[in-house]
Amino acid sequence: MSSSESSPESSSPTLAVTGAGELLQLLRDETPRTRAELAKLTGLARSTVGARVDALLATGLLAPSGEAASTGGRPPVQFAFNPQARVVVGADLGATHGRVALTDLGGKPIGEVAEDVDISAGPDLVLDWLTSRTQRLLDDAGRDASQLIGIGIGLPGPVEHSTGRPMRPPIMPGWDRYDVPAHIRRHFDVPVLVDNDVNIMALGEHATAHPGVEHLLFVKVATGIGAGIINGGVLHRGAVGAAGDLGHVATPHAADVLCTCGNRGCLEAVASGSAISKQLKEIGLDAATSTDIVELARGGNGPAADAIRRAGRTIGEVLATCVSLLNPSVIVIGGSLGLAEGNLIAGVREVVYGRSLPLATGALQIVPAATGEQAGVIGAATMVIQHALTADRVDLAVARRSASSASAS
Amino acid sequence: MSSSESSPESSSPTLAVTGAGELLQLLRDETPRTRAELAKLTGLARSTVGARVDALLATGLLAPSGEAASTGGRPPVQFAFNPQARVVVGADLGATHGRVALTDLGGKPIGEVAEDVDISAGPDLVLDWLTSRTQRLLDDAGRDASQLIGIGIGLPGPVEHSTGRPMRPPIMPGWDRYDVPAHIRRHFDVPVLVDNDVNIMALGEHATAHPGVEHLLFVKVATGIGAGIINGGVLHRGAVGAAGDLGHVATPHAADVLCTCGNRGCLEAVASGSAISKQLKEIGLDAATSTDIVELARGGNGPAADAIRRAGRTIGEVLATCVSLLNPSVIVIGGSLGLAEGNLIAGVREVVYGRSLPLATGALQIVPAATGEQAGVIGAATMVIQHALTADRVDLAVARRSASSASAS
Repeated sequence: MSSSESSPESSSPTLAVTGAGELLQLLRDETPRTRAELAKLTGLARSTVGARVDALLATGLLAPSGEAASTGGRPPVQFAFNPQARVVVGADLGATHGRVALTDLGGKPIGEVAEDVDISAGPDLVLDWLTSRTQRLLDDAGRDASQLIGIGIGLPGPVEHSTGRPMRPPIMPGWDRYDVPAHIRRHFDVPVLVDNDVNIMALGEHATAHPGVEHLLFVKVATGIGAGIINGGVLHRGAVGAAGDLGHVATPHAADVLCTCGNRGCLEAVASGSAISKQLKEIGLDAATSTDIVELARGGNGPAADAIRRAGRTIGEVLATCVSLLNPSVIVIGGSLGLAEGNLIAGVREVVYGRSLPLATGALQIVPAATGEQAGVIGAATMVIQHALTADRVDLAVARRSASSASAS
Repeated sequence: MSSSESSPESSSPTLAVTGAGELLQLLRDETPRTRAELAKLTGLARSTVGARVDALLATGLLAPSGEAASTGGRPPVQFAFNPQARVVVGADLGATHGRVALTDLGGKPIGEVAEDVDISAGPDLVLDWLTSRTQRLLDDAGRDASQLIGIGIGLPGPVEHSTGRPMRPPIMPGWDRYDVPAHIRRHFDVPVLVDNDVNIMALGEHATAHPGVEHLLFVKVATGIGAGIINGGVLHRGAVGAAGDLGHVATPHAADVLCTCGNRGCLEAVASGSAISKQLKEIGLDAATSTDIVELARGGNGPAADAIRRAGRTIGEVLATCVSLLNPSVIVIGGSLGLAEGNLIAGVREVVYGRSLPLATGALQIVPAATGEQAGVIGAATMVIQHALTADRVDLAVARRSASSASAS
């Protein structure tokens, strides 16, 4: 999060009370530190540091971890971040498949469930499935709901991130502007953050495989095509959360192909899994899903392998423009088709390295997704953790939950 | 600047000494505040606030501004930011024209000079011209060089911002990897920040005409074509400073036109001022520069007006992809051709609004540049001010200059 975004809070007169997040940021590297070291590192008054350390100890997010070398007198106590203190739920809902993971505050999965879930069954059924699986994961891990700091959800369509509502999602009947967080909060009274599936996959890949990279572009190629953008280390959602919508960009070589959006020549209409299915059907090959296409190619079917490679080249043409515009250092290719035996990524590399200027491609890596099917759930959990352990507001929410659960027990 | 970028400094043990920038950020709205208010707003120890206020008073960046209402006893003194305390130089060097402005710390020009300067004369001649004009502007304003906090420079080519060196700039013979800051510092020992001309124009337009906008794309259309990107309120330079290089993106309708870069079908080869000059020459019209083309069109020449409009449509096709990728809320069209009588911007609007998805274009504004020819120098000065009054390191540099000039006087 940029400092300019957080400035309205920074200049609020309640910062001194709510600012425990600043200490936690320092401690998240899990290096134990004393109160004196924290005061010196932050320039905060000793009394302020003391109050915040006490608040964090009360939540369990901070734990004593031995004593520092004494400079005379009683040795000072050191504190370190405790990632097991709380848990997070990350959910990745696709068109026909749902995956839910329970993770610790480091984003490490503790438990996970994956099932066939039809997103077009509507929000009531799908979100009830999500809350029931969340409860089961908590039960299996021996964790109480009071230990949950938030739930992150990825959905297969555009989402207004600030409200958690899907915005005119094409493959999600009944979901338009549905208040997803309100539904979930009827079962779990925690912050619920919602984003589109490609954004959470970008977060997951960035956190897991490329944590130090400032500028990364994640491209999902499956039934549809979309991108998630990490700029300056943070997710770029754009003015209304529509950033990364590459599926309906015009491609040079298919101006006549009609897309489901009503335009012609969209990338998704010529290089997605559904487009390749149609192309193969025309020559008598039956491959209804992206997985079918990948299996055909893996089995040595020339036309299927060729179609994937061509899709890679077409996607590469659009990505060459993205490289000129954004100058990322890493492009990650994911999604079931994107990961297909290297065929698609080879097509992407061929065009991007051939087309873009040397300055922008000199240090550019184009790599397959490393997290595989877990990218979405890890990213959704990461979204919640980054929010909870950065924003001062949510820090307090964590503290409050702890206080109420402590008084209840 | 994002907090993640500055975190190595934030966690440095010298932060308490160098952190005066934090106070200055609070005070830049020019609302007078007392020491007690500053301590409350920041959570810093009273002693820390006192030391930093003293340091800022010594530099003149902060000045006493009357007394607050007393709560009993001696009324506390209030302090406010003083934008006239120091000056900044912003320079905008184009292919054949140079402009230098002296501004206050609010980016407001105090003095300005514009002359014909041939960038291909090489760095020695051009940078000596820049330092001599800087000295003249200081003299004319009655300011001493010790009051200068930094010099910002825009160059017409790719620049490695971190070192201030041009990187293989196509129209700047003799400038490749030249150490621009070192040359300037032989005359003025202040921080020298260098960037490409389109980035500083984006900064100038953002600071002047769209200060609250988070996501903005500035497009310069003149002899060449380039873009500057504001993401999350800050300039997006990309992994190696090559972001915004739209001139060599492939266009759908001109795959056969050879570009100066060696590729075919680049945007610049079909929709720039130099491309339109060639197109008009083929039909017997003489328009050597962008200004000539604009004058022809303004004089009622149909083919010239039509060529500009067609260029706008072609640029619009590339910008439609940029809109899908970045989802900005404002696109600013600048440069001599971009500002031509509305012809070019009409072409851009026609294609972008027709092509992009409704979610991304619903609230999108496409507007002409407001700062006109001053965008570059204001942006270059803004770059220096943002750096000096944000980064703790440069704060100290300001303080040190002041200390040395104070001891010299």
